[in-house]
Amino acid sequence: MIINLKEEERIDDLHRKGYQIIQNKKRFCFGMDAVLLSGFATVKEGEKVLDLGTGTGIIPILLEAKTKGKQFVGLEIQEEVAEMANRSVLLNDLQNKVQIQLGDIKEASKLFGGASFDVVTTNPPYMKHEHGLQNGDNSKAISRHEILCDIEDVIREGAKVLKPRGRFYMVHRPNRLTDIFEQCIKYKLQPSKIRMVHPYKNKSANMVLLEAIRGGKCAVNVESPLIVYEETGVYTKEIYDIYGYE
Amino acid sequence: MIINLKEEERIDDLHRKGYQIIQNKKRFCFGMDAVLLSGFATVKEGEKVLDLGTGTGIIPILLEAKTKGKQFVGLEIQEEVAEMANRSVLLNDLQNKVQIQLGDIKEASKLFGGASFDVVTTNPPYMKHEHGLQNGDNSKAISRHEILCDIEDVIREGAKVLKPRGRFYMVHRPNRLTDIFEQCIKYKLQPSKIRMVHPYKNKSANMVLLEAIRGGKCAVNVESPLIVYEETGVYTKEIYDIYGYE
Repeated sequence: MIINLKEEERIDDLHRKGYQIIQNKKRFCFGMDAVLLSGFATVKEGEKVLDLGTGTGIIPILLEAKTKGKQFVGLEIQEEVAEMANRSVLLNDLQNKVQIQLGDIKEASKLFGGASFDVVTTNPPYMKHEHGLQNGDNSKAISRHEILCDIEDVIREGAKVLKPRGRFYMVHRPNRLTDIFEQCIKYKLQPSKIRMVHPYKNKSANMVLLEAIRGGKCAVNVESPLIVYEETGVYTKEIYDIYGYE
Repeated sequence: MIINLKEEERIDDLHRKGYQIIQNKKRFCFGMDAVLLSGFATVKEGEKVLDLGTGTGIIPILLEAKTKGKQFVGLEIQEEVAEMANRSVLLNDLQNKVQIQLGDIKEASKLFGGASFDVVTTNPPYMKHEHGLQNGDNSKAISRHEILCDIEDVIREGAKVLKPRGRFYMVHRPNRLTDIFEQCIKYKLQPSKIRMVHPYKNKSANMVLLEAIRGGKCAVNVESPLIVYEETGVYTKEIYDIYGYE
């Protein structure tokens, strides 16, 4: 299929089944966070997955490549971003399995109905909204700062759209852990698996990967630390494996 | 000073200032948990420290050796354990700086008054109290299971006896993280520093070290993972350093 690129857009290779993705350097480009989340999340055969705030569509597209899930929906509030993600779906001929839906995370449970997904994934804006601190580029700011949604919105809507015992997967910053636990407890998503991501083995974590289960009680398993760099400029073997490089 | 040992008691070397400690193999003997907590906790010059559920007195005695704190109080509910800890204090001639107090964690704020310490440390029972599952030895069971106190008691009383901005240090099991965050939020202890302890670098954490500040809001710093074994039977350099071996 021939896909037209707009100004400032480029096509990147995903190293999975030959898939590619369209990105725009004026907007938010996906980072390691999304790739690590797609490696951390478990999607079983036949399951339905919703990605809250999908951006380029990177998470649904990678999960389609990596798992036997049945349907992958990416919800995105920015019209031009959603349109670009949709062109990536077409570029990979995935329109039967991946759908990009224009809409607001805060309205997800109204849009899709309660208990409608087996799995929710999300790589939401990390930073607290402090007026005046965002850069002028509104699109990037919306992807990075809690301007249109915050941790509570993401966890509340994630909990609502999940079936009982459904799984919620989020990547976020460790410095927000207290807020994350507070909202998980409030909306009865039970943290079940946590993995800390450290740039180097002797450095503080700069990402946290979380699995939480809707309803019930469960113990938390803090998995082995995920270390990104062996040394400056050299990724660890585990990072190469997650990216799918050979 | 000549200290009498009771049946089943032995004296162990602490590798710090020549200090020694009395333990009884029929009771709970201190583990790596207490040693790692004493390496994780910060005590500044002149500060007053309370250890909730002090057992052998290991934490106050190690912190006296490692820091410039002014006074170290260990609260212990089991009379025979408190008496043994007190003999360790005398053995090391520390009676001017370390006091063992017989009493209940649940009554700590009544016993000592509110806002009376700069630092609280605790290595509390880790396991939920499930009737019939404890072994017959009551003293060990009280040290290991939440029979006489639980996470809420420890965090509530810790928060009350701390001065504003005072620091709370706890070692616990990662599988209880949700309970730990829930109670910290409830009693306004803000988690500020977390360190996961992994037996090997590719294994899940089996201990978590927590610093929380009384009052205020703060971000969480998840420090570099603490790995115990380099390979089977060989500790990492960091573990040797914390133990003070040369």
